Amino acid sequence: ATHDLCIAYKLNLAFYEKLGPAGLESLEKTVNYIPDNIFRIADAKRGDIGNTSDMYASTFFEYYNFDAVTLSPYMGKDSIDPYLSYTDKWIILLALTSNKGSEDFQVLKTERGYLYEKILERSSKWGDSDQIMYVVGATKASSLTAIRKIVPENFLLIPGVGAQGGSLADVALYGMNKQCGLIVNSSRGIIYASSEENFAEVAGQKAAGIQ
Amino acid sequence: ATHDLCIAYKLNLAFYEKLGPAGLESLEKTVNYIPDNIFRIADAKRGDIGNTSDMYASTFFEYYNFDAVTLSPYMGKDSIDPYLSYTDKWIILLALTSNKGSEDFQVLKTERGYLYEKILERSSKWGDSDQIMYVVGATKASSLTAIRKIVPENFLLIPGVGAQGGSLADVALYGMNKQCGLIVNSSRGIIYASSEENFAEVAGQKAAGIQ
Repeated sequence: ATHDLCIAYKLNLAFYEKLGPAGLESLEKTVNYIPDNIFRIADAKRGDIGNTSDMYASTFFEYYNFDAVTLSPYMGKDSIDPYLSYTDKWIILLALTSNKGSEDFQVLKTERGYLYEKILERSSKWGDSDQIMYVVGATKASSLTAIRKIVPENFLLIPGVGAQGGSLADVALYGMNKQCGLIVNSSRGIIYASSEENFAEVAGQKAAGIQ
Repeated sequence: ATHDLCIAYKLNLAFYEKLGPAGLESLEKTVNYIPDNIFRIADAKRGDIGNTSDMYASTFFEYYNFDAVTLSPYMGKDSIDPYLSYTDKWIILLALTSNKGSEDFQVLKTERGYLYEKILERSSKWGDSDQIMYVVGATKASSLTAIRKIVPENFLLIPGVGAQGGSLADVALYGMNKQCGLIVNSSRGIIYASSEENFAEVAGQKAAGIQ
């Protein structure tokens, strides 16, 4: 937690991977270009058996020098442990996502609570809150009170403000904890802010919250 | 379904990604080297929101020309649909995996059945059995009878024979359907068969089922 968490860059791996090897060269350059005091998130949503997770953890934390990686919890603890062995790095587990499909399985009722609540409950014991964050969509702000009862200390990565229509005010109201505890993400709202020649300027203004 | 499903190659993306851009060049060469009548699986376990899934689908099905990709169901239908729009390609959804962590969430009891059973039930309606397969670990052969009641027609990709100790006989007994319906996967049992100079020969024998 030596980073200035006021600013984080989340790189969507799909943008790079779709360009093949050349795209990964761009990824490498991009990550290296981000100053060290800015938190670097690989939005990769990986989730695989242990020996494969070992390789992914080394890819994102050593080869590319990311500070954090987004992961799917579906395969359970042994699919996550290899990332947690990097004690100065973070994982960001999918909990309650911002998309419509989050209704298909994440809110299935289990014997005690919704599936995503069980995931928060169990996985938050796999490591401490200095290493584990959760994805909670801004479109699900009404669930944040219940979520904060289960994971009061953990940081939450909040997508869905911007293109997906979530409310930043609601997220702050229900999701903040004593140390803030929120990384609010706007991606498409910034990167697609303009397709004209003034792209860089408009994206910069969006990122600074001016527009 | 124009492939000779008797032989499929499943490439674990992590092996390539951990080498950075050069690794992805190897991936490209490897995929192109596999003859067209052999089914090519990208073991990528992706799962992301729709617009990102669009990019991944194009990556695996167009850039690299895979026939199938493994996916995590956690983010629901809209995270999977973009792949299904490639009607001559396949998706392979994680259902009941072979690792110990499968016990953490996949077998949680929901109001009707285990989580993985709900996933089979719902997702099998997202497309037909010519496009959707499921991952079921060989270490879970005792669950195959119940699984076959939910998805009688779909192919199952079965990891866990070999290094993970699953029984091929049990898998065949409980998992086969009229058209066979199984892709049995052995990875580490083959690729790590020998670390000596006779590696290629021993791996070839393992793959042919001689040893």
